[in-house]
Amino acid sequence: MDIARIEAAAQRLAGHARRTPLLGSPFLDEIARRRVLVKAECLQHTGSFKFRGAWSAISALPPETRARGIIAFSSGNHAQGIAAAAKLHGVPAVIIMPSDAPAAKVTGTRGLGAEVVPYDRATEDRDALGARLAQERGLALVKPFDDPEVIAGQGSCGLEIAEQAAEAGVTRADVLVCCGGGGLTSGIALALEARAPGLRVRPAEPEGFDDVRRSLASGRIERNAALSGNICDAIVTPQPGNLTFPIMKRLCGPGLAVTEDEALSAMALAFRHLKIVAEPGGAVALAAALFRGDELEGDAVICTVSGGNVDAGVFARALVLL
Amino acid sequence: MDIARIEAAAQRLAGHARRTPLLGSPFLDEIARRRVLVKAECLQHTGSFKFRGAWSAISALPPETRARGIIAFSSGNHAQGIAAAAKLHGVPAVIIMPSDAPAAKVTGTRGLGAEVVPYDRATEDRDALGARLAQERGLALVKPFDDPEVIAGQGSCGLEIAEQAAEAGVTRADVLVCCGGGGLTSGIALALEARAPGLRVRPAEPEGFDDVRRSLASGRIERNAALSGNICDAIVTPQPGNLTFPIMKRLCGPGLAVTEDEALSAMALAFRHLKIVAEPGGAVALAAALFRGDELEGDAVICTVSGGNVDAGVFARALVLL
Repeated sequence: MDIARIEAAAQRLAGHARRTPLLGSPFLDEIARRRVLVKAECLQHTGSFKFRGAWSAISALPPETRARGIIAFSSGNHAQGIAAAAKLHGVPAVIIMPSDAPAAKVTGTRGLGAEVVPYDRATEDRDALGARLAQERGLALVKPFDDPEVIAGQGSCGLEIAEQAAEAGVTRADVLVCCGGGGLTSGIALALEARAPGLRVRPAEPEGFDDVRRSLASGRIERNAALSGNICDAIVTPQPGNLTFPIMKRLCGPGLAVTEDEALSAMALAFRHLKIVAEPGGAVALAAALFRGDELEGDAVICTVSGGNVDAGVFARALVLL
Repeated sequence: MDIARIEAAAQRLAGHARRTPLLGSPFLDEIARRRVLVKAECLQHTGSFKFRGAWSAISALPPETRARGIIAFSSGNHAQGIAAAAKLHGVPAVIIMPSDAPAAKVTGTRGLGAEVVPYDRATEDRDALGARLAQERGLALVKPFDDPEVIAGQGSCGLEIAEQAAEAGVTRADVLVCCGGGGLTSGIALALEARAPGLRVRPAEPEGFDDVRRSLASGRIERNAALSGNICDAIVTPQPGNLTFPIMKRLCGPGLAVTEDEALSAMALAFRHLKIVAEPGGAVALAAALFRGDELEGDAVICTVSGGNVDAGVFARALVLL
C-alpha cells in the first residue's frame, strides 16, 4: 500500500464520489476549547464513506470479472456502498445479510438494486454460503476493509482532508477517525503521511469495543470480548484487519474511546450546530473531539463524521439530550 | 440590480461563505419521478443562506460606517447571519428581537457575539426603537431582504447553482426557492438569468401564506392575511419586497405552495436520504419538488434547502412521519 494506489483510486473516483465539505461551528469550538473541523462523510453517496472503497474496488476489477457481478457480506453501510457502486457500473450485486438485519437496511440495499440473500446467523455458515454463490455465479468478493483497493478508496477521503485542512490554515492537528476494521483509518493515515505529515491520525471507538486502541497499545492484534450490545453497531468489528493493522501501527497515534451517551450527544450537537445527520458509530470521533479534549494536543482537531444511516428512533434518542 | 453586483458580492464572499454542495439521492428521484438536486444552504455558516446577504451588505459598507456597528431586526436566521458576519468583520452588532422570541434563537444570536435588544411586540414600536438606537450609536441598518447588497449576496448562491447544475449535466430545469420576502429568490433569479438561462426560478411558500405566488399571479404586490400560525415561520413575511418583487415578476415562473405536513415530510426525507437537517421553512421547496410534481415541467428539478435552524421538538415531529 502506498500513496500512488490512493491517488489512482482518487482518479477513478473523480466525478463519482462527492468531495464532502469540511464543516465547523464556533459553538463546537467553544465546547471543545479548540478549533474543530468535521469531515462530513455522511454527505457521501449512500450516506457513508463506504461508497469510496466500494467504487474503488469495483472499478479496479478487470472488466470481464466485474461484468459477472459483485458479492459482499454486510448488514449496513458497506452493503449500500457496494450496491450503489455496482449499479452505477451496470453490474449485478449480491449482498449476504443476516435475516434479522433491520428492515430499513434491507429495503435500502434492495432499493439500490442489489439482490439481498438472507442467512440465519444461528444455523447457516455465512462464509460457506458466500463461497458457494461466488463460485456458482462467478461473483467477485469485495471485503469491507481488508482489501488494498478498499483501503485506497477510503484514502481518497484523506487526500481531501489534507487539501481542506491546508485551505483552513491547519497544518498540525490530531485527525480522529471513526474506526471499525480500520479501512478508513488506515487509508486516511496513508494519505496524510504523504500529503500532510503534520496531521496525525488517531482511531476513535466505542468504550468496551476498543480493539484497535488496545491493539495499538499492545502492539499486536487484540479482539473485542463482545460483538453486540453497543449503539455504535456500524463500527463494532471483531478485531483490526491483517492489512489495516500494520498501517495503523506504523502511522497512528493512541486511540480514543467514548461512551454511548457521548456518541449520542455528539449526534445532537452535529444536528444543532452543523445541520448534518450522524449515526452513532459515525459520531464517535466528533464525541472524542468534544468530550475527550484532555487526551488531545494542539489548538485544532479534525474528525470524521463517517456515516449518517440512523433510524429515526435512535436519532430521536439523541435529540432529547439537547 | 445586475449580475455585476452579484459577482462583486461573490468576490467579497470568497473564502468566507461556504460553497454548499448540490446533493441528490436516487430515492428522492423515485419519489419525485424526476431527478432532484438539492442546494444544501443549511450547511452554510449559521445554518442558513442569510450569512451570504449579511456578509455582502456588511462588507460593502464604507469602513468608517462599518466600524460603528450594525443593527438589524430579526427573530431568526437573519439575526444569526448578521451576528456572525459582524463578528468576523470585528464590528459590533445589535439585534432587535421580540421579547417572546424562542430562547434558543436569542441564545444563538448572543453566542455569535451580538447584543440582543428585546422589545415588547404589544407595547413598543420596533422601528422607532431601532431608529433611536441607530441614531444614538451611529449604527448601520441591514434589512433582511429589501437591500441591493443583500440580494446580491443571496445571488452568489445562484452563481453556484449555475455551475453545479452544469457539472451535473442539468441545463434546463425549474429551480424551486424557499421564499419569504424574496431576497434569495430574486438573487438566484438574477444570477441564473445571466449564467444559466435554461434554469427558471419559481418561489415556494406555505399554503395560506403564499403572498408571492398570488402577487406573481395578479401582477401586483399582495399581502398575507395572517402573519403567524404556520410552522414555516422563517419564511412568513407580510408581502414581497419593493426591490425583490419587480425582479421576481420579470424572471420567475409561477409560485408553488405546500402544506405543513408536506414540509415536515420533506424534512424527514432529507434526514433519511440526504443526511441534512432542514427547518420547516427551509423545506418547502423540496416539498414542492417531491409532492407537487404535477405542477413542474422537465425531467429534473433543483431546489434549495435554505435553512436548518430547527428546534429538536419540531424535528422530532417530522421524524415520526417516516
